[in-house]
Amino acid sequence: MNPLPDNIKDFLRDAPVCRIATVRPNGTPHAIPVCPVFDGAYLYIDLDGEGVSAAGVKSNGQVTVLFDEYSDDWSKLRAVILHTKAEQIEGEWQEVTWAMIREKFPQYSQVEWEPRMTLALTINGWSQWGFG
Amino acid sequence: MNPLPDNIKDFLRDAPVCRIATVRPNGTPHAIPVCPVFDGAYLYIDLDGEGVSAAGVKSNGQVTVLFDEYSDDWSKLRAVILHTKAEQIEGEWQEVTWAMIREKFPQYSQVEWEPRMTLALTINGWSQWGFG
Repeated sequence: MNPLPDNIKDFLRDAPVCRIATVRPNGTPHAIPVCPVFDGAYLYIDLDGEGVSAAGVKSNGQVTVLFDEYSDDWSKLRAVILHTKAEQIEGEWQEVTWAMIREKFPQYSQVEWEPRMTLALTINGWSQWGFG
Repeated sequence: MNPLPDNIKDFLRDAPVCRIATVRPNGTPHAIPVCPVFDGAYLYIDLDGEGVSAAGVKSNGQVTVLFDEYSDDWSKLRAVILHTKAEQIEGEWQEVTWAMIREKFPQYSQVEWEPRMTLALTINGWSQWGFG
């Protein structure tokens, strides 16, 4: 895999939202928006462990992540697609991750969300458009 | 399936972008942003017929569509997820659809995109949050 260029790493780090695609145990696709944290290597997300996306992750671990920005000026459209493998993290790694999540998203304290099924996503492939 | 409420139909009709999740022939998920048109019954999208999403559609016809709006005010987050089956359309149906696409997205004429693999998506199930 080609390493991610710095401008794409910055885009991933700053994005408040991305969308994840998963495959349910019955083979059908699913998609939800999530608020991610990127540390330059892993992408971290936190899911409802009882939800549809979590069922897909538990079944096969495959998560495709779409970061894109829409603009009515279509010359400004850009997107990054990451093909990843998910690993549930716990203990100290989860605590460190949640420190990053709380720093990026102070909203978490307002809605009183606590860590659920926290995933570290290993990026195994990527593509992009609009980043030159 | 419960019928879509009017406020959700309006949301689908007005949205300039949504994200589609598909399952590739090898079973892995994929996701891309698309600019949809909704006529109150079918959702219409147009794909690169040689792309990854199209390969999944040709393989199994399953498309899950996510409409969501992000806000830093998390009390305003809302989303609609549609589980659909895709059917490629051609001839008069495709022409009527492209008239709707060109009316909603005048950008298409600027980028000189022509109809490619145009899909009518039949909604077989849906869920939502944030719409009351």
